Amino acid sequence: MRTCVFLDHNATTPVDPAVLTAMAPYWAECAANPSSVHRAGVAARRAVDAAREQVAAFVGVQPAQVIFTSGGSEANNLFLRGAAAVRRPGWVLVSAAEHACVRRPAKGLARAGWQVGEVGLDAEGRIDAADLRAQAMGGVGVASFIAAHNETGVLQDIPALADIARAAGAAVHTDAVQMAGKLPIDFAGLGVDALSLSAHKLHGPKGIGALVVGKRLDLRAQIEGGGHEHGLRAGTENVPAIVGFGVACELAAARMAEEGARQTALRDGLVKALQAEGAVVFGAGAARLPNTVFFAVRGVDGATLLLALDEAGFALGSGSACSSSDHAPSPTLLAMGVAPDLARGAVRVSIGRSTAAAQLQQFRAALATCLAGLRGLASVAV
Amino acid sequence: MRTCVFLDHNATTPVDPAVLTAMAPYWAECAANPSSVHRAGVAARRAVDAAREQVAAFVGVQPAQVIFTSGGSEANNLFLRGAAAVRRPGWVLVSAAEHACVRRPAKGLARAGWQVGEVGLDAEGRIDAADLRAQAMGGVGVASFIAAHNETGVLQDIPALADIARAAGAAVHTDAVQMAGKLPIDFAGLGVDALSLSAHKLHGPKGIGALVVGKRLDLRAQIEGGGHEHGLRAGTENVPAIVGFGVACELAAARMAEEGARQTALRDGLVKALQAEGAVVFGAGAARLPNTVFFAVRGVDGATLLLALDEAGFALGSGSACSSSDHAPSPTLLAMGVAPDLARGAVRVSIGRSTAAAQLQQFRAALATCLAGLRGLASVAV
Repeated sequence: MRTCVFLDHNATTPVDPAVLTAMAPYWAECAANPSSVHRAGVAARRAVDAAREQVAAFVGVQPAQVIFTSGGSEANNLFLRGAAAVRRPGWVLVSAAEHACVRRPAKGLARAGWQVGEVGLDAEGRIDAADLRAQAMGGVGVASFIAAHNETGVLQDIPALADIARAAGAAVHTDAVQMAGKLPIDFAGLGVDALSLSAHKLHGPKGIGALVVGKRLDLRAQIEGGGHEHGLRAGTENVPAIVGFGVACELAAARMAEEGARQTALRDGLVKALQAEGAVVFGAGAARLPNTVFFAVRGVDGATLLLALDEAGFALGSGSACSSSDHAPSPTLLAMGVAPDLARGAVRVSIGRSTAAAQLQQFRAALATCLAGLRGLASVAV
Repeated sequence: MRTCVFLDHNATTPVDPAVLTAMAPYWAECAANPSSVHRAGVAARRAVDAAREQVAAFVGVQPAQVIFTSGGSEANNLFLRGAAAVRRPGWVLVSAAEHACVRRPAKGLARAGWQVGEVGLDAEGRIDAADLRAQAMGGVGVASFIAAHNETGVLQDIPALADIARAAGAAVHTDAVQMAGKLPIDFAGLGVDALSLSAHKLHGPKGIGALVVGKRLDLRAQIEGGGHEHGLRAGTENVPAIVGFGVACELAAARMAEEGARQTALRDGLVKALQAEGAVVFGAGAARLPNTVFFAVRGVDGATLLLALDEAGFALGSGSACSSSDHAPSPTLLAMGVAPDLARGAVRVSIGRSTAAAQLQQFRAALATCLAGLRGLASVAV
């Protein structure tokens, strides 16, 4: 495979070398099961405890509030299904910007007698607080709002949304998978009852994440068994991945301020250049993640542009990686009022720690070449 | 930590060096999300596909029949909850020998209107087919029977049990987590609709497992989202762990015959020695895994013996690691008719690929010393 410039960090991130080093002893030498009572088991348990403290500190909670899961999708499902399971069926509210792993389990609650409401977005991709207030009037059981959008990077005003939903009686959750590692997270400040994290979005390993829960949240386990994770998630602890997750959180916190400023400057330069090329940058009027630019060029198909850029050595996303095989325009863009034709042109740049300014210069040159070629093609086709 | 002889392979196993080597490229260089459409994503997808073929070949099925999960507990829960979700509530039958991650979700189905029956065991730990036949008379919706027991190592006659349960209308599952890697598994030959595997029990990484499903099994996803795993299990694929799981299956298959014979000889020698010491070996009259010896010495507390052996440098289990913190006697032993006092003495040796004959000699000497000490203590205490 040719080397490529990886500009798809919202899909996943390479594991940091320091994270890998921390994980290394737990594959073989210290491979015991943390539930075992012998010394090897106790050592594994201590490693899990230490990582739980790191993850807890990362979002400002007590270690006992961290429930390790296999990732963000499981954490989101655990909240929606687990909170609904211990409540009388009523309204579940999610926004039109949610990831499929919130949207689908929310819709699934209809089978258990829940009514599902979708809160709209404004043209910049922000969740419409007035719409939420209107839909919440009759009371809400469960609600979930994404903290930072995986495609647009748009940040939501979670404290305000959580206030409204909690006042209506809801257990409120935020999917903070894309926010974590890019901007500071203070659980108490967000005002939610639960929050999802995923290690592989912040240079930790795949296969590990967490649902962080408020102390008063009532929840039912969705994987039952040996009573792991305070009885809320059974299964042998994934010790190396948990250790890696903890270290990834520490590294992210240590580098966040500097990286955030660096990436914001890179992003702003890219946005300017794209707009000069005639591209539409989605959510450009909203506060956004420092690393994400979601854009489209009128008349240029996103999938085609993506392939041309890939051929030129640049790996980008077309939106949510998890839905990238179905070629439908992003539901989030449609909910923002973007015309389907333009939405079909959407391409996402998401930079990361290893992205150098020079790589983005190369990317801009490659994009200009690709666009010239594709526009030429389009004019020939017309 | 002092070096110790690890005789607790049924709790977990060290990752094989060849497995780690295979996983290595997928942490950073090839860290893409398999759902991404660019070349890096396609390469990750190919790695997942190749591992799926290895796991499928390991149990004699087509790759599309393998649903990757975060491990055995999730796989067992997926079957029980997922199969029940698409069936009219009726009877769910499990045996008295099941792991907590089968027993508890089965009991949980009562909330959805299911009736839960537990099939008894004979004195050797075998599931009582006559009891199953009697309980299945009125029809069964969902059934699950453990293939090889984690504590006793006793093998069940899954084809016979599955026949009875399927004839009564059940979707039948077997938890083959402890059998996999120790004895050959042929999915079709077992006659079940689904089967659970866990990589970390066969020298693969923690955090990955699979539910292997029959082509006609109707099942509902328990983690919904981006449509991964044929829509049956959402979440970004844990690429390194999946790759490691595939290689671990290949290695286990390649070494199984030789290791099985070697471990059987070691086990038989140990059983003889233990019986000569006056120990009771549970399930000694039944066909068992080649690596497992579950025993007790009358008048000697299992937890105390375990700690003494740990102090002497030998890591053993007291039964299911997942329940090892609650100090209650094994429900499986009680179901076999073992007196609670004797059951509280139970200690498990589970050997592995790296266990040398000399280590078991050392273990026997250490055990004799520990027992002499503890018996002396007991006689003083009396």
